[in-house]
Amino acid sequence: MATVAQINSLNASIQALQTSLTSLEGSTLTQSDANAFYLMVCGVFVFFMQAGFALLEAGSVRSKNTKNILMKNLLDACIGALVWWGWGYGIAYDGGGSSGPDGNGFIGHGDGNQLGSFFTGSYDSTSASSGGDYAGWWFQYVFCAAAATIVSGAMAERTTLIGYLVYTMLLSGFVYPVVVYWTWGYGWASSWNEGLLDFAGSGIVHMTGGIAALVGAAVVGPRKGRFDESSKPIPMPASNTTFQVLGTFILWVGWYGFNPGSTLGLAGSAGTMSRAVCTTTLAAATGGCTVVVIDKFLISHTWDVSMLCNGILAGLVSITAGCAAVYPWAAIIIGFLGGFAYLAGSKTTLYICKVDDPLDAFAVHGCCGFWGVIAAALLAAPEFGATGAFYGDGAKLVAGFVFCLANIAWTGGFMLITFIILKATGLLRVSAEMEEAGMDVSKHGGSAFN
Amino acid sequence: MATVAQINSLNASIQALQTSLTSLEGSTLTQSDANAFYLMVCGVFVFFMQAGFALLEAGSVRSKNTKNILMKNLLDACIGALVWWGWGYGIAYDGGGSSGPDGNGFIGHGDGNQLGSFFTGSYDSTSASSGGDYAGWWFQYVFCAAAATIVSGAMAERTTLIGYLVYTMLLSGFVYPVVVYWTWGYGWASSWNEGLLDFAGSGIVHMTGGIAALVGAAVVGPRKGRFDESSKPIPMPASNTTFQVLGTFILWVGWYGFNPGSTLGLAGSAGTMSRAVCTTTLAAATGGCTVVVIDKFLISHTWDVSMLCNGILAGLVSITAGCAAVYPWAAIIIGFLGGFAYLAGSKTTLYICKVDDPLDAFAVHGCCGFWGVIAAALLAAPEFGATGAFYGDGAKLVAGFVFCLANIAWTGGFMLITFIILKATGLLRVSAEMEEAGMDVSKHGGSAFN
Amino acid sequence: MATVAQINSLNASIQALQTSLTSLEGSTLTQSDANAFYLMVCGVFVFFMQAGFALLEAGSVRSKNTKNILMKNLLDACIGALVWWGWGYGIAYDGGGSSGPDGNGFIGHGDGNQLGSFFTGSYDSTSASSGGDYAGWWFQYVFCAAAATIVSGAMAERTTLIGYLVYTMLLSGFVYPVVVYWTWGYGWASSWNEGLLDFAGSGIVHMTGGIAALVGAAVVGPRKGRFDESSKPIPMPASNTTFQVLGTFILWVGWYGFNPGSTLGLAGSAGTMSRAVCTTTLAAATGGCTVVVIDKFLISHTWDVSMLCNGILAGLVSITAGCAAVYPWAAIIIGFLGGFAYLAGSKTTLYICKVDDPLDAFAVHGCCGFWGVIAAALLAAPEFGATGAFYGDGAKLVAGFVFCLANIAWTGGFMLITFIILKATGLLRVSAEMEEAGMDVSKHGGSAFN
Repeated sequence: MATVAQINSLNASIQALQTSLTSLEGSTLTQSDANAFYLMVCGVFVFFMQAGFALLEAGSVRSKNTKNILMKNLLDACIGALVWWGWGYGIAYDGGGSSGPDGNGFIGHGDGNQLGSFFTGSYDSTSASSGGDYAGWWFQYVFCAAAATIVSGAMAERTTLIGYLVYTMLLSGFVYPVVVYWTWGYGWASSWNEGLLDFAGSGIVHMTGGIAALVGAAVVGPRKGRFDESSKPIPMPASNTTFQVLGTFILWVGWYGFNPGSTLGLAGSAGTMSRAVCTTTLAAATGGCTVVVIDKFLISHTWDVSMLCNGILAGLVSITAGCAAVYPWAAIIIGFLGGFAYLAGSKTTLYICKVDDPLDAFAVHGCCGFWGVIAAALLAAPEFGATGAFYGDGAKLVAGFVFCLANIAWTGGFMLITFIILKATGLLRVSAEMEEAGMDVSKHGGSAFN
Repeated sequence: MATVAQINSLNASIQALQTSLTSLEGSTLTQSDANAFYLMVCGVFVFFMQAGFALLEAGSVRSKNTKNILMKNLLDACIGALVWWGWGYGIAYDGGGSSGPDGNGFIGHGDGNQLGSFFTGSYDSTSASSGGDYAGWWFQYVFCAAAATIVSGAMAERTTLIGYLVYTMLLSGFVYPVVVYWTWGYGWASSWNEGLLDFAGSGIVHMTGGIAALVGAAVVGPRKGRFDESSKPIPMPASNTTFQVLGTFILWVGWYGFNPGSTLGLAGSAGTMSRAVCTTTLAAATGGCTVVVIDKFLISHTWDVSMLCNGILAGLVSITAGCAAVYPWAAIIIGFLGGFAYLAGSKTTLYICKVDDPLDAFAVHGCCGFWGVIAAALLAAPEFGATGAFYGDGAKLVAGFVFCLANIAWTGGFMLITFIILKATGLLRVSAEMEEAGMDVSKHGGSAFN
Repeated sequence: MATVAQINSLNASIQALQTSLTSLEGSTLTQSDANAFYLMVCGVFVFFMQAGFALLEAGSVRSKNTKNILMKNLLDACIGALVWWGWGYGIAYDGGGSSGPDGNGFIGHGDGNQLGSFFTGSYDSTSASSGGDYAGWWFQYVFCAAAATIVSGAMAERTTLIGYLVYTMLLSGFVYPVVVYWTWGYGWASSWNEGLLDFAGSGIVHMTGGIAALVGAAVVGPRKGRFDESSKPIPMPASNTTFQVLGTFILWVGWYGFNPGSTLGLAGSAGTMSRAVCTTTLAAATGGCTVVVIDKFLISHTWDVSMLCNGILAGLVSITAGCAAVYPWAAIIIGFLGGFAYLAGSKTTLYICKVDDPLDAFAVHGCCGFWGVIAAALLAAPEFGATGAFYGDGAKLVAGFVFCLANIAWTGGFMLITFIILKATGLLRVSAEMEEAGMDVSKHGGSAFN
């Protein structure tokens, strides 16, 4: 027979447990706090890439156009923030809501649960309190700014500021958010998410920037003196290798926000995050070694630091899609072949297409972005939640190709029309005299160095 | 009737719960661990701002004074650490104790619960174990170093190292900690904390540095050749735009520690943190665009990269007070008007006051710091725990004005006396020959570039 | 008598508790997630040091060898990653396993629980899921890369790329991992872990790099023109002070990953982490002030920025062993004497040994690394879990000396043989003409600056 004393004792135990539980609840970190901090830190690393791009580009162009390229890089960060707040985030994520697709496969329209918008002015205070929406807006903004910045390098040294302003606003405020809606949002390529694997954006971010870069560089035409009469390229040496290398290191650092951060949260994702750190490192290292060695022994016969930088970036872009889903050995293969993708793209662009892309932005971001999507579709390991063709399932490969072709058509087509209109109206390219003198003296009040 | 078996079963359930609870307790992260890590990371971002200031200043002065300005920036970080450990933290926070005010509204005296001090040597091992005091000391140190570093730019290219050493020690070791004690500590302006709203230090950190910068630049006098005989300014172009831009990017990155980090902890603060990240971004972007556009179309008629940099910094300083308490749209307004505050301050300083401030440190940190405090008092939203004048409560506006005037009187007065004494004793300014030759050759063993 | 109703009520309470507990379990951050993120972030800070070393070295050498030194720095990061993945991690930590020593005190052999290896191809999926092994691999990789990078500065401006490739692979792939196995792994110096105190690697990382640097610089011989006929040093001014200072700031930033991160986890370590942040700051500040003042008043009689940079680095290296175990006042003493250790090492190397170490890599990393181990053994406080000689226990001092001597014998001996073989085969040093012209023109396709 149970006694009242026993019952009381049990009651006391339960009370004590309740107290301990409440105390534990009040002294442990919640997952939502951790996830917001995670997005904040990773976003800061990615934002820092803006400085990396600026240095890489400033170091790669001739010193008479330093101020011009730096201004474009700074403006990318500024304009990107404003359009991403104004409407970009609403287009890309339907306002950040978790409401799911509303039947529209092409573009978000930002009603409902959104951060703020020029169009509607609405605001969701619930998510504001939890921080989720703000942190998500921030993390996606820095990706948008990265996509936009890729283009400025390819069109450096001869594009007007007005032309730049038009294309950067269209790219970061419309073209890129639409691609995001398709895939990471609620669009047509997300509904078969089992298909497409682009974890951190080889195709969604880098290829989008790379395609726009190629189209822009082709339409604006080569810099004066880039080709001789027989269309043979004439070397245009970079102005500052130290800035190139510092820029590359900063970009590499930023990639540790870009790739691991794409888990979009820390809780339950530490394994994925850590694997992404490891694969990102190995692909960068392999890409760099591959390109510099091939260039040394088969192409330039010098130890070319710019090639080493671009090889590292090629490895980083290539692993971005698959970083969370492949084994370390696969990351090495991806970086290795990414080096070849870069070299092929670079040489084809310059020698066959005769397009002058001073930063090799298309080769690095476009070609390796494409390769990254395909590589992830090939090598994703079932153990990590996705099955690549190598493991017997070709669905991701099909999905990857379809997405890449759609993105080429969309971004390539839209930007081609944009650049052609800009060119036809005479707004795209500076005058020959201005190009000769350099844009710093002509437009920015003097040389960048005194 | 309850049976013994039932009681035993309940007991077993309670035992199992107890085990689960203990296991959970041992496997979850505590808030205090999380908060210390949060302060560590945010503090590292803020510390990195020292590099940003160094680059911005080195890029803005003439190359013959590069080493001199770099040395001052490095020394600020070193000296700041030592005085902040020695007595600054004790003055500012009464030793970091939670004991609350002891009736002294003006200055802390560091007894009791403190990290360490030249004066008392006492040490609190309890807080040492938990890490709280150390992490707090670290986070506040990097703020102190930022305040001190602002001044070196304004007085660049003609101030002696001894003069610099005197003012930087007084500013970081006495003037600034006193302002902190007033507000974030236990002083007169903290007791009506419902009044003053300066979340991350527009007024407390930046305006303090900015006021000292103005007074210093005025007393030391303009650089040789800065004004012609009719007191018209003669342009002195910056030596390296790339360094200016890299410095600006690094400062912007650092602000993501400065503003969000001012929650002083992560647990329960993720919403505030994330909002601060978002408002900081938008104000920076708006400030930059505002200044560069106005400068282009109304003032210089060039696309001036330095103006873009300063506009971004103007936006950042302006949002610092209100970053946690305003809506994103309000951040855009604050950045926009911050751009005007900067331009007005810059032009007034140079053309009306005839003060030579090579970095526009007063305009950026002083004027926008003032505007930041007022802006927060105007636009703070009740939803975020503070009510600005726009929402019907003018108390913060009054408190903001009172604090700003008090700070101007305190910092301005103290530093004015300091600089006048230094000038009267001939210790403030280098000789005309030394200024002509540049300080790198005269004092630092040769040029910074070979 | 207890009733069924009472039992039911108790049951309901227990159910409710169970639900709350499960809900709490699902909403709080686990320690393992937090620890992996901690290693990720700290590792990113340490990885960023690669950029700091690159800038410090590029700024310190003559501009005709800029590309060469930058390439070596980039390659260190790449090659380090590949060898660390291939076999280095397996040598250092027996594959990251927690299996403990297997009786082999000298070297790990990477079987069992490992990340991946050229040799075995095995892979542990359990640890992959939890992220622990990946995160640990990452954090240890960045330390390895730091150790390897130290050497390139000491041998700058006259070492061949093939010579560099050989020594960097041997150092990062064999010599360094063996030292780690001895101490942080399962080797002979770890079994008396109560003895040796080298928390973050003054001796294990920095001294290893510093010893190799000295041996390398001695064997390769001085740069042409470094000494006159009477063996008196001729000044070779640094090419870019701004890069030196930026490099120093970045290294300082990176040290906040290096030292605090060496807790290897956040949970339960916030106090240690925060103390390490504080002691690291104070030692850096003291080291910098000490060296610059002594140099100004006793040696060069100029305010030498390079000396300030090296003094800061001297303080940082010196505190690395003891950062977690000493009081702040002790950190100041360690930084102060570290400044002397640096100056003594620098002057001895140059004036007595006539060894040309362009970066003072041996003085900074070798001498201060040694001093750091001894200092920790002297000043470790019992309150922080280790008892130094100052507190009455000389065991750590003995252990520190034994380890340092063993490391000197191992690293010095191994690298001496390596460099002598390289020299004997003519692979170590570039030709006199190439050195005269600079390696950028000879090997890297042209100057770094145009």
